[in-house]
Amino acid sequence: MPVLLSPPEAAALFPVPGVRLGVTEAGVRKVNRKDLTLIELAPGARVAGVFTQNRFCAAPVQVCKAHLPAGEIRALVINTGVANAGTGEPGLAAARATCEAVAGQLGIAASQVLPFSTGVILEPLPVERIVAGLPAAKAALKADGWFDAAHGIMTTDTIPKAVSRQVQIGGKTITLTGISKGAGMIKPNMATMLGFLATDADVAQPVLDALLKEVADLSFNSITVDGDTSTNDSYILIATGQAGNATIADTASADYVAFRQAVLDVSILLAQAIVRDGEGATKFITLQIEGGKTREECRKVGYAIGHSPLVKTAFFASDPNLGRILAAIGYAGIDDLDVSQLRVWLGSNGEEVLVAEKGGRAESYREEAGARVMAAAEITVRVDLARGDAAATLWSCDFSYDYVKINADYRS
Amino acid sequence: MPVLLSPPEAAALFPVPGVRLGVTEAGVRKVNRKDLTLIELAPGARVAGVFTQNRFCAAPVQVCKAHLPAGEIRALVINTGVANAGTGEPGLAAARATCEAVAGQLGIAASQVLPFSTGVILEPLPVERIVAGLPAAKAALKADGWFDAAHGIMTTDTIPKAVSRQVQIGGKTITLTGISKGAGMIKPNMATMLGFLATDADVAQPVLDALLKEVADLSFNSITVDGDTSTNDSYILIATGQAGNATIADTASADYVAFRQAVLDVSILLAQAIVRDGEGATKFITLQIEGGKTREECRKVGYAIGHSPLVKTAFFASDPNLGRILAAIGYAGIDDLDVSQLRVWLGSNGEEVLVAEKGGRAESYREEAGARVMAAAEITVRVDLARGDAAATLWSCDFSYDYVKINADYRS
Repeated sequence: MPVLLSPPEAAALFPVPGVRLGVTEAGVRKVNRKDLTLIELAPGARVAGVFTQNRFCAAPVQVCKAHLPAGEIRALVINTGVANAGTGEPGLAAARATCEAVAGQLGIAASQVLPFSTGVILEPLPVERIVAGLPAAKAALKADGWFDAAHGIMTTDTIPKAVSRQVQIGGKTITLTGISKGAGMIKPNMATMLGFLATDADVAQPVLDALLKEVADLSFNSITVDGDTSTNDSYILIATGQAGNATIADTASADYVAFRQAVLDVSILLAQAIVRDGEGATKFITLQIEGGKTREECRKVGYAIGHSPLVKTAFFASDPNLGRILAAIGYAGIDDLDVSQLRVWLGSNGEEVLVAEKGGRAESYREEAGARVMAAAEITVRVDLARGDAAATLWSCDFSYDYVKINADYRS
Repeated sequence: MPVLLSPPEAAALFPVPGVRLGVTEAGVRKVNRKDLTLIELAPGARVAGVFTQNRFCAAPVQVCKAHLPAGEIRALVINTGVANAGTGEPGLAAARATCEAVAGQLGIAASQVLPFSTGVILEPLPVERIVAGLPAAKAALKADGWFDAAHGIMTTDTIPKAVSRQVQIGGKTITLTGISKGAGMIKPNMATMLGFLATDADVAQPVLDALLKEVADLSFNSITVDGDTSTNDSYILIATGQAGNATIADTASADYVAFRQAVLDVSILLAQAIVRDGEGATKFITLQIEGGKTREECRKVGYAIGHSPLVKTAFFASDPNLGRILAAIGYAGIDDLDVSQLRVWLGSNGEEVLVAEKGGRAESYREEAGARVMAAAEITVRVDLARGDAAATLWSCDFSYDYVKINADYRS
């Protein structure tokens, strides 16, 4: 069960003018499963993407990187079941064949198609099943297809993830609707497992590219479930330009500031949804690291806490086992860290408890207070490193029996 | 149940002339538990130590680092139950008080005592119970106390860990006997949770110091259970000099070569014993990484595989989910890694199966072969990075329900 996260309501997902989505059952790996999603973009849409830094990056990621710079992207095709990663040259050929088939269906060029795959690594992609499923996906294309698409990209996710917003920019109503998927192999490096955010705003390409990088860093690149960086992470930002606003081309403009905030808000919610639905998760943990010399060292400390199996199992047990948090801070890799200066708080439900200072447990700390805070499903760990002004916020989850169960059983 | 590891037999542990050991129940944290161990060294023993790099290093580690350089160490005192880490100034005072009490019992100086603690972090050390227990520990001192001491330093260990060897050096019989403990919070950085190795060899202090660093790197610093570097890791090498051999002072001598090999063999067995008894472990995994440009990058790849919760749960399930291994290699942090060149093998019981090459699954690979190899309790993952001549070997274990159970329950 995801932590304090409900499935989206279909009616709450605004269509984005210029985007149509269609989903079908192609039987990629199992039958009776919505596993093939087609997204069609109207001419003129601008697209930006960030992708995994994993050296075993998947074949579709390699094809995306080749197709994206040319611009004029008109379609995205996403399959689940098989990740088409670690598949060598045959995998690349399969990803290209998928693009060719989509191009044939829509009357566009193969280079205008971005392919995405998610699922088991190292299995060959059954491209013939995807090709056979495309006509049904095309027939299903509709403007209000976001709810279906959120289902269509799920793997071990227990609920679909979608967020939709409307904001006023330059006197026009701008829509942003996005979907994401992922629950395990989650420690994105540049982007998450799969995330797609579309808007009808008119945004200049360089602005869109730079904004996506910044926002990905503050959202999908700030979450972790198990510390495993996937081979297929991709986050795509689409701007169809059909809202009629003046093109957003100046990052100093009020329009840009409002647009950036809307993109950031939606991206953070989509990223957090992945953590809330993290494999086996029972707790949603916010790691707020302050007082660092650099943002990078704050992230190091946050990830040390967020990845520690000992900290994660203590959260699962609602056990305020503070020593494990201190140990993780201690091995985070800040060689000149003065542990006598730092302070650590645990918080939940509006209460914050100082738990450590002066190199040890805070004098004012009482186990009852720690136990009370830890009993909540949503908990914040705040660390003041007391050595600078930099800060970073990460989101993580706990480690439960169900994580082991899910991952010991995944292929069976 | 530890993986292919039996408890030592008391009779198989050779006494080391110049070393006596005594164990008692001091009730440090729980009653009816052997939790206090005293080790007395004859005058003239030389001692070398390596300690955790965790910034929250425990109070006893700080005291050890202060006492060791002066030499003339005459006693080691080890308590379980409470780690005396994250305890600030009061923790340091408690560690020093422990040394004073030992000094009083044995008629030596407090600076000749090395203190060690292991157990729960952030709890105050009940020094009065340790002091009260010391007379009984002293009364129990005996040359053949290694078996008792191996029990006396256990925490979440399921079996005691001890190794003993005799070798001929310079015409003399040299004895090496060591004990270790640890099962969780294991990714030593310089040393393991606690390890003690004593020999009656006569070894010059600089040789002893340098050898310990080298051996620790190849043994305790090459294991991982959960990636959590403890606050209390310590590995101590004692040479009492009572064997009558010519002092080993030249690292180019045949005596040194034989002695180094014996110390290394025993250290690796003691370190591997910790992994075999890793919390919840059902598999013992050897990670043999070859063909790297540097040993450090081989270790990076090994640790990425060894720490990945997805790889570890796949081993638990005996599932040859090779994609997870490739993904871990891909995110290990070698930016210019050419995945089309590397090869990966899985091996067990004398059989080795090529599973990946040319960026994907090996053509010759058959799932049955992978499943057969993975069914064993002891498995080797061999990776050829195909970019140089460096290599590294690490040892790790799988991730089971019991790991979560043990660590969600540890303080209860």
